Amino acid sequence: MSTAQPSQMIAPFRAVVENRAASGRILLVCEHASHHIPAAWGDLGLAAEARLAHIAWDPGALDLARALATRLNACLVHAPVSRLVYDLNRAPDQPGAMPARSEVFDVPGNEGITAEERDARTRAIYLPFHDDLHDEIAHRIALGLAPVIVTIHSFTPIYFGKPRAVEFGIIHDTDESFAREVLAHAPRGLDSRLNEPYSAADGVTHTLRLHATPYRLPHAMLELRNDLIATPAAAAAMADRLAPCLSAALAGLSVGAA
Amino acid sequence: MSTAQPSQMIAPFRAVVENRAASGRILLVCEHASHHIPAAWGDLGLAAEARLAHIAWDPGALDLARALATRLNACLVHAPVSRLVYDLNRAPDQPGAMPARSEVFDVPGNEGITAEERDARTRAIYLPFHDDLHDEIAHRIALGLAPVIVTIHSFTPIYFGKPRAVEFGIIHDTDESFAREVLAHAPRGLDSRLNEPYSAADGVTHTLRLHATPYRLPHAMLELRNDLIATPAAAAAMADRLAPCLSAALAGLSVGAA
Repeated sequence: MSTAQPSQMIAPFRAVVENRAASGRILLVCEHASHHIPAAWGDLGLAAEARLAHIAWDPGALDLARALATRLNACLVHAPVSRLVYDLNRAPDQPGAMPARSEVFDVPGNEGITAEERDARTRAIYLPFHDDLHDEIAHRIALGLAPVIVTIHSFTPIYFGKPRAVEFGIIHDTDESFAREVLAHAPRGLDSRLNEPYSAADGVTHTLRLHATPYRLPHAMLELRNDLIATPAAAAAMADRLAPCLSAALAGLSVGAA
Repeated sequence: MSTAQPSQMIAPFRAVVENRAASGRILLVCEHASHHIPAAWGDLGLAAEARLAHIAWDPGALDLARALATRLNACLVHAPVSRLVYDLNRAPDQPGAMPARSEVFDVPGNEGITAEERDARTRAIYLPFHDDLHDEIAHRIALGLAPVIVTIHSFTPIYFGKPRAVEFGIIHDTDESFAREVLAHAPRGLDSRLNEPYSAADGVTHTLRLHATPYRLPHAMLELRNDLIATPAAAAAMADRLAPCLSAALAGLSVGAA
């Protein structure tokens, strides 16, 4: 793979926006929707197994986000490129943005990455996505739709060989109000926890920090254990459980604000 | 002025970027550089005097910013449109974004503004500027240039009939480190104060909140009393005094980080 003048060669990967005309308050974001590695980056030196593993994307997250978008009359903004090329929930200077190692996998195509290549990926993937997302959010703020930003993620049931008991993690940036409402209305029978399996202190709230916090928008990052949303049918069933939870959390927020 | 489908009629006003190739750490921003009211908004119902007053722009700020850019080897991003059409240092839902009244002036063209018109101005002016600024900042972060965001403003010596004694105000968002360094190295003989004539609590740090704070970038909003930079020669003389102050503040920051 040549990295000579890469920024000149790679066209921007725009965000995918679905239900743009939806008028619901919640705006759904799925930064790890895709495991697609564009041709410019070959296979990043990875075997097929790794390219489809949770290090490449959040399995089930897009299915869940789409099912929630339908149920909540929500706009959905999602990514067209694997997090292994650029992890959109990381700033360009965070090590995880283009990781040379992710959990137990080495990523040879990300080793010894140059500043120019870092810049090229930032321009080709990070900036188009976040500028498109910013456009949707500012548009909704201007129209008085009072958006609530909800990012949809999934996490692996076994991490570094250890099983995780938590099933539904609810993470917030500086404003915990919406996350606490979601927890208060979490579906029965789902092991639901605040700021697990990780939290803002781990640097995982970049999207919220960039788009929700500056506008003081209520927000949450929702993390589902991926074995619970492994098929489209399972994701739809989970959306049936989560949509009422999110609606109740919205209502709780309005009561709190009144 | 018709506001039917305004977003369809108005082409985006991109940010003006000067010294893009500059490699200095400081990135200068001037949101109130221009008093230009594009034809689409007529004269906003204002007399010529008001259209050139401090409510329309920050007199002297662009001259000062350009003089600093030369002295500091800094990239400069500035606005092409008057703050009366859209104040780029305000979010779309802040009342000051398209003010119907500014200090002692009514702005008839901003009275009873519709959601559609608010959205149209957001798309035509706010989003292009901030997306362009975001692109410059992320590009510099990716290249490892460790940018420091400095916004350049001026304020009126007499506000609501009362004279202001402060000459140089240094305002910060959540991280005060760079602002305190600037104050510590402020030019002798200049009445310099932290968080005057206003502060983040007054909602005036939107640009810093949007672009510096999410990336944990050192930052300051510099406010010069506009009678001190009323001519290009005065602005250049002020830049001669401020450039060493900012260089020393940068050096102090590095010492603090070591």
